[in-house]
Amino acid sequence: MTIESKGAPRDLIRIALDAMGGDFAPAETVKGAVQAARTQPVSLLVVGDRDVVEAELAKEDTAGLAIEVIPSKGKIEEDEHPVRALRHKPESSVAVATHLLKQGEADALVSMGSTGATMAGASLILGTLGGLDRPCLGGPFLGLAPKTVVVDMGSNVDCRPALLLGFAAMGCVFAHRFLGVENPRVGLLSTGAEEAKGNRQVLEASDMFRDSGLNFVGHVEGMDFFTGKADVIVCDGFVGNVLMKFTEGLGATMAGYLRTLLDGKLPANELDGFVSRVWEVNNLPKKMGGPLFGVNGAVVIGHGASRGDSVAGAIDTARRCVELDLVDGMRTELEALLSEAPSTD
Amino acid sequence: MTIESKGAPRDLIRIALDAMGGDFAPAETVKGAVQAARTQPVSLLVVGDRDVVEAELAKEDTAGLAIEVIPSKGKIEEDEHPVRALRHKPESSVAVATHLLKQGEADALVSMGSTGATMAGASLILGTLGGLDRPCLGGPFLGLAPKTVVVDMGSNVDCRPALLLGFAAMGCVFAHRFLGVENPRVGLLSTGAEEAKGNRQVLEASDMFRDSGLNFVGHVEGMDFFTGKADVIVCDGFVGNVLMKFTEGLGATMAGYLRTLLDGKLPANELDGFVSRVWEVNNLPKKMGGPLFGVNGAVVIGHGASRGDSVAGAIDTARRCVELDLVDGMRTELEALLSEAPSTD
Repeated sequence: MTIESKGAPRDLIRIALDAMGGDFAPAETVKGAVQAARTQPVSLLVVGDRDVVEAELAKEDTAGLAIEVIPSKGKIEEDEHPVRALRHKPESSVAVATHLLKQGEADALVSMGSTGATMAGASLILGTLGGLDRPCLGGPFLGLAPKTVVVDMGSNVDCRPALLLGFAAMGCVFAHRFLGVENPRVGLLSTGAEEAKGNRQVLEASDMFRDSGLNFVGHVEGMDFFTGKADVIVCDGFVGNVLMKFTEGLGATMAGYLRTLLDGKLPANELDGFVSRVWEVNNLPKKMGGPLFGVNGAVVIGHGASRGDSVAGAIDTARRCVELDLVDGMRTELEALLSEAPSTD
Repeated sequence: MTIESKGAPRDLIRIALDAMGGDFAPAETVKGAVQAARTQPVSLLVVGDRDVVEAELAKEDTAGLAIEVIPSKGKIEEDEHPVRALRHKPESSVAVATHLLKQGEADALVSMGSTGATMAGASLILGTLGGLDRPCLGGPFLGLAPKTVVVDMGSNVDCRPALLLGFAAMGCVFAHRFLGVENPRVGLLSTGAEEAKGNRQVLEASDMFRDSGLNFVGHVEGMDFFTGKADVIVCDGFVGNVLMKFTEGLGATMAGYLRTLLDGKLPANELDGFVSRVWEVNNLPKKMGGPLFGVNGAVVIGHGASRGDSVAGAIDTARRCVELDLVDGMRTELEALLSEAPSTD
């Protein structure tokens, strides 16, 4: 894969960063951009209101770093209707950043802003991969099970079985290329391992999964996020969203609980390190962001509450997605799934 | 409330225990019965195959304890169809135990056996409370949030909004009487706090909740199991089941992870105690069982993998349900909900 950019050296992967998106933007997004440019083989196209972004950049030592500011106007807020907002704010940071990817000026897009707006923008501007009507968020979300991929992590709250099957196929590509899992096993999240257990959605999807070319191992349960029974666990975005936020809340509460329990029993600095690790293993997406599966381009959506470290983490995920050519892998896999579908009676 | 039993002293609460149900039955169910009879103001009607139950009882010191064996024949297995199995095995332990409750020979029923069979038996033999077509499992399920009640914890995988409303009303009665929460706040589990966020089921239920007499605080998210934003969190049994089993798996994995992290940093016995506490706070239902909401009688379903301690814990929960007259409270609350319904246009 040849990578070129106007300003940046040829072998750097070009990341368009929505600098205005996120609870702590633009201060922390800019910090993350600088950190990434300093430590990773990437060049940054930092998209945002020129004045504020340049003011933030001026606080950092950017000498010799491949960082370019791309001006945009305003941002899409968390509570705006994504599609409507994109129409009314075509010059917003996320829209401009997505167009950079579409036009080949960037290799990947990273945003900590409204998940809905980033997804809608990616779908409308980049287009979805063949056979899919909507993309999804996927990836590992548990530090305690870092090789278990979950799709959908929260984007599509009502899913038809065929959509779940497409998500599963993309989850397999991610598990294989990004995590190095050979022939990933796919499990459908349900209320029991038995074929007959599950809600209507799962039971309908189950037949379709069995007839697909995927390495389907049947139904898995809540505890199977930890048992290694499947490499790719498939659920709709409602369940995925609840689980991800539940884990986040549990991690924070558990960290506090453990701090109390161990207070005075470990040296203070060891206790701090210990508590941070407990928090971290329950907050993987905060560290690495969540790749968007199913659009024509590499897009990573970071946690809204990301600080600079997490922004740099999401940029690193985006860089790896480009290097591993994940989008192309997913396109091929979805085409295979579509071409197999008619051959099953 | 007057409590009477043939064999037992007048002031003991009479628990019918399905001694054959559970992964470690009858050895551990009998142990739990003996432990409960020794430590709680209860008398036990231990229902099971007479020979095996008596053989287990013979291993224990039961002198002076209010324990009576009630013979039954066979048990309903986890993989049997609940309703069909009840029809074909009318003398199974869970059927006989449920009839004891129906006939007023027992004040409550406790089973560690097939959840489906216990629920079906309770619905068919005891009947459901007015307005409900199905009961649900409810209660707190997190040791880190011991006063947050979750309904449905896993029984009804596809729920109409009216059913969710009934579950919520019963959850409030439980939160008030069992946990001492005044005017419990009800939250509907969704993917965002905003009114417009959620899947079809949630959005439909939301309107109905707003129009009800419940203290509805709107949508809550996965992290709100820990934030105290609601006292009663309502979800369908699919989500409830996944969350409960997820937490169980997370607790076990986390306990192992922490053991590794702290190995050599704490004295061995302190480390053991610490790890047990971490496991326990993530496994509340294993300790106390889950009360069944919505049937004409006090029924507690324990975890299938319960050991004696947990069996005694479930018996204690059943005893408290009887003392607090939870069933009557739920009946009254459901009637109020039904009588209010027509007045909202």
